[in-house]
Amino acid sequence: MSSQSILSFAPGTPAARLNEWLQFFDTNGTTATQQFLGDTPVIIAHGPGVDTQAPAALAAPVAKVAVTGDFRLGRRELRPGGTIVRIGDAAVGDGSLNVFAGPCAVENQQQMLACADIAANYGSVGLRGGAFKPRTSPYSFQGLKWAGLELLAEARQHTGLPILTEVLDPRHVERVAEIADGLQIGARNMQNFELLTEVGRSGRPVVLKRGFGCTVDETLAAAEYVLAQGNDQVILCERGIRTFEHATRFTLDISAVALMKQRSHLPVMVDPSHSVGIPSLVEPVSMAAAAAGADALLIDVHTAPEQALCDGKQALLPTDFGSLMGKLELLAMGLGRKMAGVMRPVLADSER
Amino acid sequence: MSSQSILSFAPGTPAARLNEWLQFFDTNGTTATQQFLGDTPVIIAHGPGVDTQAPAALAAPVAKVAVTGDFRLGRRELRPGGTIVRIGDAAVGDGSLNVFAGPCAVENQQQMLACADIAANYGSVGLRGGAFKPRTSPYSFQGLKWAGLELLAEARQHTGLPILTEVLDPRHVERVAEIADGLQIGARNMQNFELLTEVGRSGRPVVLKRGFGCTVDETLAAAEYVLAQGNDQVILCERGIRTFEHATRFTLDISAVALMKQRSHLPVMVDPSHSVGIPSLVEPVSMAAAAAGADALLIDVHTAPEQALCDGKQALLPTDFGSLMGKLELLAMGLGRKMAGVMRPVLADSER
Amino acid sequence: MSSQSILSFAPGTPAARLNEWLQFFDTNGTTATQQFLGDTPVIIAHGPGVDTQAPAALAAPVAKVAVTGDFRLGRRELRPGGTIVRIGDAAVGDGSLNVFAGPCAVENQQQMLACADIAANYGSVGLRGGAFKPRTSPYSFQGLKWAGLELLAEARQHTGLPILTEVLDPRHVERVAEIADGLQIGARNMQNFELLTEVGRSGRPVVLKRGFGCTVDETLAAAEYVLAQGNDQVILCERGIRTFEHATRFTLDISAVALMKQRSHLPVMVDPSHSVGIPSLVEPVSMAAAAAGADALLIDVHTAPEQALCDGKQALLPTDFGSLMGKLELLAMGLGRKMAGVMRPVLADSER
Amino acid sequence: MSSQSILSFAPGTPAARLNEWLQFFDTNGTTATQQFLGDTPVIIAHGPGVDTQAPAALAAPVAKVAVTGDFRLGRRELRPGGTIVRIGDAAVGDGSLNVFAGPCAVENQQQMLACADIAANYGSVGLRGGAFKPRTSPYSFQGLKWAGLELLAEARQHTGLPILTEVLDPRHVERVAEIADGLQIGARNMQNFELLTEVGRSGRPVVLKRGFGCTVDETLAAAEYVLAQGNDQVILCERGIRTFEHATRFTLDISAVALMKQRSHLPVMVDPSHSVGIPSLVEPVSMAAAAAGADALLIDVHTAPEQALCDGKQALLPTDFGSLMGKLELLAMGLGRKMAGVMRPVLADSER
Repeated sequence: MSSQSILSFAPGTPAARLNEWLQFFDTNGTTATQQFLGDTPVIIAHGPGVDTQAPAALAAPVAKVAVTGDFRLGRRELRPGGTIVRIGDAAVGDGSLNVFAGPCAVENQQQMLACADIAANYGSVGLRGGAFKPRTSPYSFQGLKWAGLELLAEARQHTGLPILTEVLDPRHVERVAEIADGLQIGARNMQNFELLTEVGRSGRPVVLKRGFGCTVDETLAAAEYVLAQGNDQVILCERGIRTFEHATRFTLDISAVALMKQRSHLPVMVDPSHSVGIPSLVEPVSMAAAAAGADALLIDVHTAPEQALCDGKQALLPTDFGSLMGKLELLAMGLGRKMAGVMRPVLADSER
Repeated sequence: MSSQSILSFAPGTPAARLNEWLQFFDTNGTTATQQFLGDTPVIIAHGPGVDTQAPAALAAPVAKVAVTGDFRLGRRELRPGGTIVRIGDAAVGDGSLNVFAGPCAVENQQQMLACADIAANYGSVGLRGGAFKPRTSPYSFQGLKWAGLELLAEARQHTGLPILTEVLDPRHVERVAEIADGLQIGARNMQNFELLTEVGRSGRPVVLKRGFGCTVDETLAAAEYVLAQGNDQVILCERGIRTFEHATRFTLDISAVALMKQRSHLPVMVDPSHSVGIPSLVEPVSMAAAAAGADALLIDVHTAPEQALCDGKQALLPTDFGSLMGKLELLAMGLGRKMAGVMRPVLADSER
Repeated sequence: MSSQSILSFAPGTPAARLNEWLQFFDTNGTTATQQFLGDTPVIIAHGPGVDTQAPAALAAPVAKVAVTGDFRLGRRELRPGGTIVRIGDAAVGDGSLNVFAGPCAVENQQQMLACADIAANYGSVGLRGGAFKPRTSPYSFQGLKWAGLELLAEARQHTGLPILTEVLDPRHVERVAEIADGLQIGARNMQNFELLTEVGRSGRPVVLKRGFGCTVDETLAAAEYVLAQGNDQVILCERGIRTFEHATRFTLDISAVALMKQRSHLPVMVDPSHSVGIPSLVEPVSMAAAAAGADALLIDVHTAPEQALCDGKQALLPTDFGSLMGKLELLAMGLGRKMAGVMRPVLADSER
Repeated sequence: MSSQSILSFAPGTPAARLNEWLQFFDTNGTTATQQFLGDTPVIIAHGPGVDTQAPAALAAPVAKVAVTGDFRLGRRELRPGGTIVRIGDAAVGDGSLNVFAGPCAVENQQQMLACADIAANYGSVGLRGGAFKPRTSPYSFQGLKWAGLELLAEARQHTGLPILTEVLDPRHVERVAEIADGLQIGARNMQNFELLTEVGRSGRPVVLKRGFGCTVDETLAAAEYVLAQGNDQVILCERGIRTFEHATRFTLDISAVALMKQRSHLPVMVDPSHSVGIPSLVEPVSMAAAAAGADALLIDVHTAPEQALCDGKQALLPTDFGSLMGKLELLAMGLGRKMAGVMRPVLADSER
């Protein structure tokens, strides 16, 4: 009966050549649409003629993948080697282990620069920091907003590291995308489809956090909203799900890390800090995430966790972060992988 | 030590009189802000002077409620008698049992009007119908959008019943609010705080669906985003949470219905259809919801469920809906409550 | 291909007539075993000849039900009218609403008799009370054990009501069954299959509590362990499942009540007390359970909840229990059902 | 106020010396009981005199730990260096990484010996295999029972590796303990307290699997039932919990591995096979478990998974098991740990 397939073509295949395929499908009663997965042209065909022998004159597809359901552009079969997402100099998905670190929320210049220094000195490849903070209560600190973004940009200049920050509102995407190197979609917004579409359109790298009440399948489906805009720079981020176990803040779904790597060509990040909510568990869970195959880790670091305006209780102290980075480096060797960042000699301020 | 209280005042208390309170608190080192809960002026005071004896000349508060945490304007203590939310002629929260019914999604004129007739004839107080549909996959039917809203408006004119519909995007709120009698925030958007703020500003009645991964406390906190805009027309809607039990689509949290009624003055609605996802369970679960104290039910009805473009498999057939409405009427008597709607004699088209 | 069916026969069908069926199946390559579901003989046949036309001379089955999977003897199709489980004079499953009440744990003679009086006076059909208590910690009160059973028996004599109590250990079943009218399997033991088999063998009525981490399907499968011993006197008991929501102790799965009634001929009980763990929620949740179709309720009542040795904080005070019983009686009328118990004039001790 | 402490003493402290402590507490109004944690004498004291300065003549405790709640003998503070559980030559808890492998169920001699060979050849330190199988349905294969135990004993003789097997019924414990080197308590029986007490009494090493609906706190409390019998040879085993995510069979709670290690002195095992239920995920999840600090892994291996009588679909093929063992060895180096087992040259049968 009627079936569905995705055909992918070499980057640069001329539009005219792709149109020949669309015409071919049109003539045999098959619905076909052409899209891009980054620079890869793909044609999604659905109908009785999907598997009809095509004329030899048509451009040969690089891959043809039979699909069922709505998980399409993210399927690993389309890119068995995986997608590399570039955020600044970081290449997430190239096999290396990448750590993004920083405070949960940008609070002020002094705090942001201090945290950025720590992140940079111990070998992070990028900075995290929230300027727009989605808070359960309207009465909680909502972030410094645009002023926070400016501090993040200053931290980028200070350290040379790219910045990753959350965007909450489709009306903000364009402006945030002008400043940030990577856009983060928070767990509460994983199924905010209007927002996903806007970040897809922005073309910026996107870290898509799994909703804490959402399945792996739904996470992959949410990624399709970004991919369907032609933006293939998507990192899937496991950050814990809601379960009956409240000894930790959320339950990190370690199996999902491996499962998403197997099902999708997109790289996978893990956020141990928000998942466990207990500093002493961040190290073992980070180690586990790397061993399960995560491409990147997102870690809360704070110079004075007890004074943090948001989620401070889970942030690592600088020394603990340094210790973790050292252990991750040894672990990476045991895994036959390399740490992406480099530790920097810590300079006195006068030496900069 | 420092404590926090909410003072509520009689509607119509002059601003000058409220300002006297703000000045009083200011002089004794207490932070105080004035807000409205609908037409009720409230002052939220936080600081050492909260419980200082106030001068007798100040306007006497109707209630003074000590609060901890961020659950403020929704607290039942502020309105022990409860809030009535008016959607068209329906008065949700006045003790009566209100049924809103209709199709999950507006599909076309013929379907919408047929479903609206059924809803109206069997005693619904309002129509439901999705024009903007949040779908897990970008490749699923996303609703008729603005055209769907026009069909809803037509169904309103046809039946005289108010219409309730979902809004997904903060950029759409103003325009949707011009057409719809009530705005629905879907489960996936319960923590889309930008959207909550916009619907709060719209002043329209809001049905706030509990996120399937969210707690009762978080649901109450989300309502605060709407209430904090001065809009007290909020109905909390339980529609099932995610659990390990997959025999039903979600697990309806019946205890939460009673718990939210006890903790908050806001009325509570239950959506059995989306919760169970199995038509034969809609009736017993609707009965249970009413018996647990729900003020309203939201029920999917479809003239041809098997052809529905969205969630058809859970919609009730017209005859089953009629049977349920009859049973709810008897149940309401056993509960000492009344059904809000009236059954209408079904007229042949020629008689209208 | 090979399929599976259950044939049920009229009670009293002679063994010789059943054997003719077994021989018939044997000769056409079908595996068949004969069992009893209470007094109903059934033959479970599995193989290619299940649907072969049987000789007219064979005893006509009352029903023949095609089955897939391992849910067999509990299927509603085998007894569309449902099974009535008799505990003392109570007939659970006959359409009436039955309340079993008493303390969580038997503590001493005075407490047990006082609670029993309250249960009896307000119309309970049976007494609950734990003598053997399964406790999370070995350092908690483990129940009065055999002495507790004697106090329960005394309460039975005092009130004339049957007693229902938990059994924990397969080595205890025989002796507990000699004393108690009904045996309760606790949630923690729902998949203690050795224990299930022993209570099946005892022939006593069994209340099988759903495990808080177990699905409806697993609950029905657990009941098969009892049914497979020929004991059809099984009541399924919903008592809440573990979910992320901790505002209540467990999450009562109200849909499961209706679902188990639809799938199985066994009656269904609900335990609101242990499910919610909050006295003020026991009433609305009890009402909901009855409205959803529960045949029975199991309610913790205590004369001095704050002094209870086990789970006291969830027990209803006598007056609240009385109020609930009155509301249930009105509700039952709205549902077209009757309350099974009768309220008794409360006599002074001297009048007894 | 009244408080509670545990005092631990050097192994071999004479009973008379311990009695002096009991008398001392008795005279100052403190309840004290003496127990053993393995060969370590402990006194649990509860009352106002817990912290009274004791006479210098009393035996000096090795440690004194203030406790709240019912988590007592398993607390890490009592043995900061951790407990080593010895099963045959394996020393679980000494810092090394130990793999126990074998089939889910013992099926027949040929299968058991073949699986045992594979386990042994690739460096397992012990054999797993179920003789008594707890099955959701009474109609599923229930294990070979005593005959299965004999086959396990034969596999032990064949390989020299100790055997680990599940016990289900308190009436079986004594006899199973005579044969098996380690007793396993399955997830469904984690709160079968009668069974826990019996395995405690047996003195055998116990692998206590976390119930799939149970919290970390409840798991630690269940271990107390074994410890309270003086048996300190307990391994806690994480094997996945029930969550809404059904892409994997259960959700492995990787944070719990680290958390249990921090809170308790007992070693921790992880069962990736039953947790994920998908062979391709066993490797990454095993790696994650080791990286999170697990002392041991329990892995299903089968020579012909597709023919297994129980849970075959999750078993690793021999070659995949071998590959995993090689990767674990490299990983252990990265973690600064050593693999406990040794790979053996695979001999032809004639060479044995």
